[in-house]
Amino acid sequence: MHAQPNEMRKDYLLNRWVVIATKRKRRPTDFVKKAGKRNTDTCPLCPGNEHMTPPAVLVYLPSKGGVKKEKDLNGRRHKNWLIRCVPNLYPAFTPPQKGNKAKVEEGFIFKWAVGHHEVLIESPRHDEHPGVARVPQLIHVVNAYIDRMNEFCRKKYVKYVSIFRNHRLEAGASLSHAHTQIITTPSIPRTVKEELKASKEVWRKDRECAFCEILVREKESPRFIWENQDFLAFAPWAGVHPFEFWIFPKEHQCCLLELSKTQIKHLAEALRKCLGGLNFLLEDPPYNFGFHQATAEACDHFHWHLEIYPKLAIWAGFERSTGTFINVVSPEDAAENLRKAVAKE
Amino acid sequence: MHAQPNEMRKDYLLNRWVVIATKRKRRPTDFVKKAGKRNTDTCPLCPGNEHMTPPAVLVYLPSKGGVKKEKDLNGRRHKNWLIRCVPNLYPAFTPPQKGNKAKVEEGFIFKWAVGHHEVLIESPRHDEHPGVARVPQLIHVVNAYIDRMNEFCRKKYVKYVSIFRNHRLEAGASLSHAHTQIITTPSIPRTVKEELKASKEVWRKDRECAFCEILVREKESPRFIWENQDFLAFAPWAGVHPFEFWIFPKEHQCCLLELSKTQIKHLAEALRKCLGGLNFLLEDPPYNFGFHQATAEACDHFHWHLEIYPKLAIWAGFERSTGTFINVVSPEDAAENLRKAVAKE
Repeated sequence: MHAQPNEMRKDYLLNRWVVIATKRKRRPTDFVKKAGKRNTDTCPLCPGNEHMTPPAVLVYLPSKGGVKKEKDLNGRRHKNWLIRCVPNLYPAFTPPQKGNKAKVEEGFIFKWAVGHHEVLIESPRHDEHPGVARVPQLIHVVNAYIDRMNEFCRKKYVKYVSIFRNHRLEAGASLSHAHTQIITTPSIPRTVKEELKASKEVWRKDRECAFCEILVREKESPRFIWENQDFLAFAPWAGVHPFEFWIFPKEHQCCLLELSKTQIKHLAEALRKCLGGLNFLLEDPPYNFGFHQATAEACDHFHWHLEIYPKLAIWAGFERSTGTFINVVSPEDAAENLRKAVAKE
Repeated sequence: MHAQPNEMRKDYLLNRWVVIATKRKRRPTDFVKKAGKRNTDTCPLCPGNEHMTPPAVLVYLPSKGGVKKEKDLNGRRHKNWLIRCVPNLYPAFTPPQKGNKAKVEEGFIFKWAVGHHEVLIESPRHDEHPGVARVPQLIHVVNAYIDRMNEFCRKKYVKYVSIFRNHRLEAGASLSHAHTQIITTPSIPRTVKEELKASKEVWRKDRECAFCEILVREKESPRFIWENQDFLAFAPWAGVHPFEFWIFPKEHQCCLLELSKTQIKHLAEALRKCLGGLNFLLEDPPYNFGFHQATAEACDHFHWHLEIYPKLAIWAGFERSTGTFINVVSPEDAAENLRKAVAKE
């Protein structure tokens, strides 16, 4: 851990922030393309290699009639875990420390990247990704998300908890062991802020949750993919990634903390079914997913959901310079194919 | 050409648009990863293969004391060209046609993707990319950008002209022959619209161009990279890509149409020097670039510029779901390395 956090800088004009994450010092030669080289050394996330990561902030251990929740203490690492959550070795966000200097203002806008950056190891089994996982294991995963959120939501400097997953090297996963990342940020990120603002406007006008209305309509649309008692999956009307889909709780909830025990089970099932279908349809493609959530004060108008972005296309000069996207698969085609694939899971 | 344009759809809540570009029908199997497979057939953009593209809308031919500007007519293709601009075979945007049906509104917001999508072949030489090109050839390239802009700016349905470049497969270039793409859109794209809005606010308050002020400061900052009489290159304060840099005209101009003959020469030199430096520093890395421009009515407060995005990192779950970025190279480090590399060009 370094005493000084990274900088976050705001663009000159856009309301866009970047973390300048230079803790892992990189030289230009580090970026020169090495033909498909990949780290094939020992997996630091596999059982037996616990010493290769920082001490766990949370471990689930098997226990009679359930799990026992612990953390690694005094440099000792728990073994025989079901779930393990550790600080990221190269964190983009770091906790505030006494003695953090105020930075001399250079005239452009910045703040410190204060927060947390963790790796949640989803299973002791290297390849137990959600699309192929046992549902009971996925229930542990969702419970661990909730445990970490509960911990973070008590901290004043945490304004948002981003829970996301990078699957396969092409989608940015530097480790192939099944894992989720959790980042907390010192402000609400741009995309979520925009959703909050727009949904608040709808609520002010109609006293209705914009997302609840979307669910009613997409359930009956050609973009419908799958549902169980508590969750609905569909390809969004204006999805920017080929085969993009979203998973929503049917009940109006602003964040994961509101999930009941049954709903947690049904969310685990939704992950298994929908990511299993994606896996089957496109032969285990790279993908990212990210939860969108709100805090209590936005509970009237915001509705948490999970967005899944298969990584099948490249955002090129047009997308990167204009913020407008080109998707070569219509959401209706995506949904039709995913619907059939999920049904086979 | 198809009679019906693609659809553009707006996200449920975000002010984000996507073109659903399904003209080139894709099946799920088209997305299953084929190990590094690349089209190694004849290059359709090389001299001799003009019949493999649609007829050119603009060709530059060598002529005594300059160039002669022509277009392909009656199915005949000009040979011996210096520059050639052709419609994209798989256009995302297509011109309006008589008989375009009004679409039945599904309740969510959309419009037709009306416009143009062209490929500007920058040289008869397959590998004459700007980082290694002859400056006189780059002057032709810039002149051709201006010619196409002049043509498009007369059309009522054209609200924006996006000129961008994808370099190498990893940055989205499906053809390796040196080329730029030009897309016209029926509205001003999100990123440019945001820049326009923010710079207008600055102008209203201070009667000053926000960009002119940025130039004054970045010229003296550790982010400075290179300048000539008319252009300045620097790594932006909050760049989101490792080694990102921007090129600005020193004179306050809202678009390329205002360039003088001398300035065109100096822009060609800026492209050659700066992209040559990038090429040298990172061994011909993939990159995208895109011009940001404004139309006449924004001329007071907007300042055109070129943004260059080396493609050295992957935007993963955090970036894609939050709109916040992590850059592992500080703009100051990027500038220092690029400054030295450009000096060697």
